[in-house]
Amino acid sequence: MSSESTAEIIEATGRALCEHGYADLTMQRIADESSVTSAAIHYHFDTKEELLNAFLDDLLDRFESRLACEARDPRDRLTDFLDAVFEESSSDHDDFPVALMELKAQAPYHDLFRERFVELDEVVRTVVETAVRDGIEAGYFDDADPEEVARLVATMINGAHVRSVALGERTGRTRETIEQSLTLHLGWTPGSEVAA
Amino acid sequence: MSSESTAEIIEATGRALCEHGYADLTMQRIADESSVTSAAIHYHFDTKEELLNAFLDDLLDRFESRLACEARDPRDRLTDFLDAVFEESSSDHDDFPVALMELKAQAPYHDLFRERFVELDEVVRTVVETAVRDGIEAGYFDDADPEEVARLVATMINGAHVRSVALGERTGRTRETIEQSLTLHLGWTPGSEVAA
Repeated sequence: MSSESTAEIIEATGRALCEHGYADLTMQRIADESSVTSAAIHYHFDTKEELLNAFLDDLLDRFESRLACEARDPRDRLTDFLDAVFEESSSDHDDFPVALMELKAQAPYHDLFRERFVELDEVVRTVVETAVRDGIEAGYFDDADPEEVARLVATMINGAHVRSVALGERTGRTRETIEQSLTLHLGWTPGSEVAA
Repeated sequence: MSSESTAEIIEATGRALCEHGYADLTMQRIADESSVTSAAIHYHFDTKEELLNAFLDDLLDRFESRLACEARDPRDRLTDFLDAVFEESSSDHDDFPVALMELKAQAPYHDLFRERFVELDEVVRTVVETAVRDGIEAGYFDDADPEEVARLVATMINGAHVRSVALGERTGRTRETIEQSLTLHLGWTPGSEVAA
């Protein structure tokens, strides 16, 4: 099977997941969303779990490439990171955050899902921790514990996800709260002007 | 139907939800967890949605009674609140946080669930906001925006819930992060000695 087909199957998985939810997701419904037959999907992915694992892996890859600019000012890196997280969560279909929350609720029963979510969390925390550490070293930020600041931001992002799904609150509201906390922890406000 | 039966049905709903998950929850399975017949359950609750709404309402009531000590030192109130939240999330069955997350993922499709979660969030934020405001007025805490501190704490609690389900992280880890943030915002650490 070509990588084009694999990419198509993974995209179709995302659409089918949003439309039908985890419980009602079947290989046939994924096939219906693509030009690939359900037999061909089965050929490549033995189980629904493997397919969803590939879907989460792809999500992680795309998030990482979105952030693949390491060399710049750590203040820009933190602002870009928040842009990436909060654009991602508002630009997709409304159903995407719901589908993702369903997969999170399945993590205790599927080791592969849990591994992917742990990996995603590590990426999030590493990006923030590194930017905070670099910013402190460069004298842009007040002294703080980079690991704890990263944990705070990661947990608030998790909270923003729940609040958007369960309460219908816009995720941008949580971004404001994160920014206020960063101001307090780092003496610097995300998005504030950085001299070129 | 007696209120004892109603209470029994609601308890059985919690057990059946933890055991079977939202998608596979049926009136019959709830009946199997209690001494009440599925016909009797139907007599009292027309739909699964109404029954789960009553279950969430009961959860909210129990959380509110656990916190029903308004008159004391605001520092004790904040510490007790964190105890209540984090005991609740660790003392129940392991499956309970998962079941609750499934219901949160259903909130976009069930107005009643959303209303209950919004109500629970309002209780959480009001308790924290009031304690922070009282503590600032009494001179125990540094000056801060009580509403924003409450929002920070509520969002972190939401994040702790996701992290325990999706990542398998113990919720106590997030409590430490909340306490560090409160120290920074309020100049006071939860659980630190309060002179009687």
